[in-house]
Amino acid sequence: MPDYLRLAPLFAPSSVAVVGERDRISPASPACMALAGLLAAGYRGGVHAVNPAAGVGGGRMPELVPFAGAEELPDGVELAVLCLPRERLAAELELLDRRGVRAAVALASGPPDQGRRGFFSERELTRAAVDAGILLLGPDSLGLINTSSDIHIGFPAARPAKGGVSFFSQSGAMCACVLEQAAGLGLGFAKFVSLGGKALLGEADMLRALGDDPETTVILGYCESVENGEDFRTAARQAAAKKPVLLLKAGVTRAGARAVSAHMGLAAGSAAAFHAAFRQSGVIEVRETAELLSLARMFATQPMPSGPGLAVVTNAGGPGILAADACAEIGLLTLPRPGSATLERLSRALPGIASLYNPVDVLGDAGADRYEAALSALAADPQVASLLVLLAPTAAARPLETARAVIRVAREDNPGGKPFAACLLGGESMRAGRRALLEAGIPCYDFPEEAVAALSALCGHGEVPPPGLCEVPASGGENGAGPVDGCGAPWDDEALSIVESARGLGLGELCGVEALEAAHAAGLPVLSTGLARTSWEAARLADDMGYPVSLRLALRDAGPEAVPADDAARFARLADAADVRRAFAELTNRAARELPDAPALGCLVQAAAPETAFELSVGFVREAPFGPLVFFRMAGMGDVASGDATDAGDEAARRLAPLSPADARAMLREMRFYPLLRGACGGEAASLPALERLLLGVSRLAVRAPQLAGALFSPVFAGPRQARVAGARLALR
Amino acid sequence: MPDYLRLAPLFAPSSVAVVGERDRISPASPACMALAGLLAAGYRGGVHAVNPAAGVGGGRMPELVPFAGAEELPDGVELAVLCLPRERLAAELELLDRRGVRAAVALASGPPDQGRRGFFSERELTRAAVDAGILLLGPDSLGLINTSSDIHIGFPAARPAKGGVSFFSQSGAMCACVLEQAAGLGLGFAKFVSLGGKALLGEADMLRALGDDPETTVILGYCESVENGEDFRTAARQAAAKKPVLLLKAGVTRAGARAVSAHMGLAAGSAAAFHAAFRQSGVIEVRETAELLSLARMFATQPMPSGPGLAVVTNAGGPGILAADACAEIGLLTLPRPGSATLERLSRALPGIASLYNPVDVLGDAGADRYEAALSALAADPQVASLLVLLAPTAAARPLETARAVIRVAREDNPGGKPFAACLLGGESMRAGRRALLEAGIPCYDFPEEAVAALSALCGHGEVPPPGLCEVPASGGENGAGPVDGCGAPWDDEALSIVESARGLGLGELCGVEALEAAHAAGLPVLSTGLARTSWEAARLADDMGYPVSLRLALRDAGPEAVPADDAARFARLADAADVRRAFAELTNRAARELPDAPALGCLVQAAAPETAFELSVGFVREAPFGPLVFFRMAGMGDVASGDATDAGDEAARRLAPLSPADARAMLREMRFYPLLRGACGGEAASLPALERLLLGVSRLAVRAPQLAGALFSPVFAGPRQARVAGARLALR
Repeated sequence: MPDYLRLAPLFAPSSVAVVGERDRISPASPACMALAGLLAAGYRGGVHAVNPAAGVGGGRMPELVPFAGAEELPDGVELAVLCLPRERLAAELELLDRRGVRAAVALASGPPDQGRRGFFSERELTRAAVDAGILLLGPDSLGLINTSSDIHIGFPAARPAKGGVSFFSQSGAMCACVLEQAAGLGLGFAKFVSLGGKALLGEADMLRALGDDPETTVILGYCESVENGEDFRTAARQAAAKKPVLLLKAGVTRAGARAVSAHMGLAAGSAAAFHAAFRQSGVIEVRETAELLSLARMFATQPMPSGPGLAVVTNAGGPGILAADACAEIGLLTLPRPGSATLERLSRALPGIASLYNPVDVLGDAGADRYEAALSALAADPQVASLLVLLAPTAAARPLETARAVIRVAREDNPGGKPFAACLLGGESMRAGRRALLEAGIPCYDFPEEAVAALSALCGHGEVPPPGLCEVPASGGENGAGPVDGCGAPWDDEALSIVESARGLGLGELCGVEALEAAHAAGLPVLSTGLARTSWEAARLADDMGYPVSLRLALRDAGPEAVPADDAARFARLADAADVRRAFAELTNRAARELPDAPALGCLVQAAAPETAFELSVGFVREAPFGPLVFFRMAGMGDVASGDATDAGDEAARRLAPLSPADARAMLREMRFYPLLRGACGGEAASLPALERLLLGVSRLAVRAPQLAGALFSPVFAGPRQARVAGARLALR
Repeated sequence: MPDYLRLAPLFAPSSVAVVGERDRISPASPACMALAGLLAAGYRGGVHAVNPAAGVGGGRMPELVPFAGAEELPDGVELAVLCLPRERLAAELELLDRRGVRAAVALASGPPDQGRRGFFSERELTRAAVDAGILLLGPDSLGLINTSSDIHIGFPAARPAKGGVSFFSQSGAMCACVLEQAAGLGLGFAKFVSLGGKALLGEADMLRALGDDPETTVILGYCESVENGEDFRTAARQAAAKKPVLLLKAGVTRAGARAVSAHMGLAAGSAAAFHAAFRQSGVIEVRETAELLSLARMFATQPMPSGPGLAVVTNAGGPGILAADACAEIGLLTLPRPGSATLERLSRALPGIASLYNPVDVLGDAGADRYEAALSALAADPQVASLLVLLAPTAAARPLETARAVIRVAREDNPGGKPFAACLLGGESMRAGRRALLEAGIPCYDFPEEAVAALSALCGHGEVPPPGLCEVPASGGENGAGPVDGCGAPWDDEALSIVESARGLGLGELCGVEALEAAHAAGLPVLSTGLARTSWEAARLADDMGYPVSLRLALRDAGPEAVPADDAARFARLADAADVRRAFAELTNRAARELPDAPALGCLVQAAAPETAFELSVGFVREAPFGPLVFFRMAGMGDVASGDATDAGDEAARRLAPLSPADARAMLREMRFYPLLRGACGGEAASLPALERLLLGVSRLAVRAPQLAGALFSPVFAGPRQARVAGARLALR
């Protein structure tokens, strides 16, 4: 059964009961308002009332006899609208279950928004809904609209137009704002849902239902928190594979997350994890409220363009320049030179001094005819995949006629079905033209930059990316011969044993040789490293590894803070055994003198990195609610990112595990340093396949070792033939 | 005399003549329209007409007797409005001069916008205006408005409100667009100028006049091209020192510049040079049309805040979160925790479940009273420097009453005179509240993000930066002992002699030892380098320098392309004389074999960089219309920037010469790598003073050597104690 049918009792019930409070029977009570709204919307199913009656529907349903309680409801009621105090909801669900009710909307009945909510009472409500098997929307929902079944619950002032956009939002205020704004923008809705407190139904349920819903062509959402990251990602990926999904995540900065937490009493989830979850699911992430509405209008009305070529037709130079600037800045659309056949048509239709190249300037004295001719020629050009009409207010401008010409070409003279957008610059004089375009389903914007941004998003909306490699965390293969998982090296369960024994010792973190050994067992390419307790042992290890080697102090039971400065605790590039022994003595003596409370275990001896083109860091952090987030950055830049007061300047690529090979490739590519890594700047390159395998290996470790809270592999030396991990720290849960 | 008085004949003439064409006397002729517009605006000075008469002013000036030609005009006419074909303008200016006319507006009379203009006819017009001593606005101007003198020329449909904003624009379409949009946004104007073809008066003249104009509080401009960069920068700096100057530069990307060039037949100037010119003049650069209007409303009405602390008051969580996100993303405003006195006042005024921290959530059932109490408490908090009111459409929301409460607190309960802004989310229901706020001079936005962006710009608008060091290019000091100019090393005119002798030989570029010698003479810190023609000479040079040294092939008369690959043509880190001789032989033999047409001069011997923490590039390019643009980047990243198809990804800091020490410091700071350079990431630092001196030295060279089209110093090795130039290329003009 498709998912929208699962929610049919909610979105298209055959019969509805509105349940109010006994002592609040008046035309202004929430329940009477809800009943009136439902009747006013023309809902044709059965309507019943528990408690509200007085004056409902302006007398349009005189036969409505209110029941005194839910237990009196007749059979066949599918949806109950609950206008009750929060503490009565759980008990009411039990009553409704006995009467066979399948779904319920719990409207905000007290103050519309309660700030911090009682976490425990919500848990109880969730349990009650699950026990009753009732699809509960809310509590604190502002309402639910389905324009095709004339279901209109809550939202007393709104009467949205019918259309292909479906919207859901955790914030009731954003629902009200979008409803009001949409009215002026010609945006029509299929479903409109205020999720409220999400005791049962949340974002993932909506994504599943709306993804399947044949009346929904574009899914729009406003998210603050997500409870089950995996469920959300799966639902988002499935929905995005069927239609465009545009989500605005609020609380993406630390300040915003604090505000979410003050508002909801819930952690908002890290911005980076959300960005990654959206990108890896094929969701189009929207950054601002204005952009949400602006992109929705484009996606709701226009087909996907077949390529990046945009033709701009304008009656003034300035707006054309601004459009060209915006195209180049966003980087997704190009302004191709019209083909020779097009140029010939344009030169016949336009005055000699008009600019025929792109932007095509039909000049300030153009009426609608020149626009029509230019658009018709450009729509036939194979280089042109989308068209933008700019109209500035000149004395000769004919906004309404021009709008009609645009509509005519878009409908009748547009063989490839190319997307059109318009921008009518100005105020009052453009009103009629704007309205005509909106009614004809051609998005019309106030400024060229906004139009180009929306067309760019349409053009950039590609395929849903492939899922990661190990879909289900494997339980581990045979010892030493586990599956390869794309990272090029077998998995050895010894990695888990090392982690487990550290946990057994009550350690919070694993570092030094043990961490490198675990990394090695996990299939990561590790620089040969050993712990030497005496200077002779150090020399023997170094002899085995081959020179040069480096030496680093290893302390027992001491965090990295105990070690003085990095330079004081290590020697690099020791050339022979005598050097090694001397260095060992100096390091351990210095430690005995300066760190009497942290006895030295000895020294780590490590082979030199064969080639040291780049020093990188990779690792992962487990991020609620999404799980492990794999990161990749230049070594050293990490401290900047975390220590900085703002969220900017963080130069890391991040993806949620499990990674696909395409994810790993994309992580490298999106680094500003990619050209340097690739060797395009004249320097020596790093081996990109080796770095990709390393990222896939870290992803596999993150998936297979749920005991780890995170891992940092740094430095990683990446050269033209290989990448080698020289340091590792594993944080245990 | 202040500059606005210089333009008084244009902005506030005592008497105006409108000049039309003899054969176009009709109520719809451009001249009759212009005359009617002037009369309708209530202009009270003398009005005369040459040719137009029929039905002018709806019979309000029956006494107006048209003259048959400008030569018949009476004495005392200060401004002439010319509605004539372009080819007649020059001759008409001569006539007007004889009648003592001081200023003229040449309105667009043919098609409003002629696309590519005749460059030569414009030159002739410029000459005619200069000869006649007439302040000419246009040709192709759409008009001129001064609301305080009731001068209203052109713009037939517009009647802008009086206010403190003055606007100028090269694009007539942008004038019309801004005029229409401003009407709905409550934006009032002092002066409004369509510059048109800028035969005489341009951006710099407007900046000077509006900077001085006591009625202008904010200057707004839209620029496409600038003819005289130095004049523009001086005028912009002077204006910005007096009031906020907000400019939108169109054509900032390559595609946009192409569009400017198609539109204007003029080069738009590089985006980087414009960014630098704006920043170094204290101009606020605006990126989009929407932002121009949105910032104008803020700057026109609100005082500068005294600090970064913003208080947000909201009736819903969602919008508050979005505002907090926007603050953090822009990075200029903070959301301070209210002080304890404020918290006490808030807790008395708000329900127990309200969030008192910032954003302050007055809850969805708030009317106007809670807003008033919260704002009043927050306005008194010393941590709060600006206030933002968010109102979402809830059932309890009272937009108009809330707007009035905001106005009351902003006016009467706002002791520090802190800036206020509002965002009324929604559509129809918010209209009356919005209008009340606009009328009271409190900017009101549709979405929280837009409001925060405007408040951030207000907060970030700081002092005008200090000018560069060598204001006037010095002619050069005594040989070998010129002034130091902040770069820490004396100037030697030998630098110019080397460049001149290369020019004398007809070379287009200077590289190798000569370029390094010129750099050395110019006071730049150069790595010791010599040209050896024999292997023995190479060894002797190396002995003098001390080992290790590097060796590079030097070819006669061959561009760098002739040298095979970089690695094949050099040896690095040669440890002794024998190595040097061997390397010399191998390089020259290889050259003789592989490059028979480019005989080798010998090899360059160069001392090793003492410490090689970073490899950087610095240099300058002469950029019309602004002169030398000094740049600084990581070595190797340059190729990415120039070779890339898009304009993004260019990781260079740039400033126009002459640099001030503050400019040089800022250039280092704005690099993403600054933390690495500074040593904050644990690595070795580069000497920032040495890099600053190097930048100042490059700036001095750029100013003193106008013979150079540009210079590239790369690589520059920057270590903890010094920076050393190891390679140089100088491009001659």
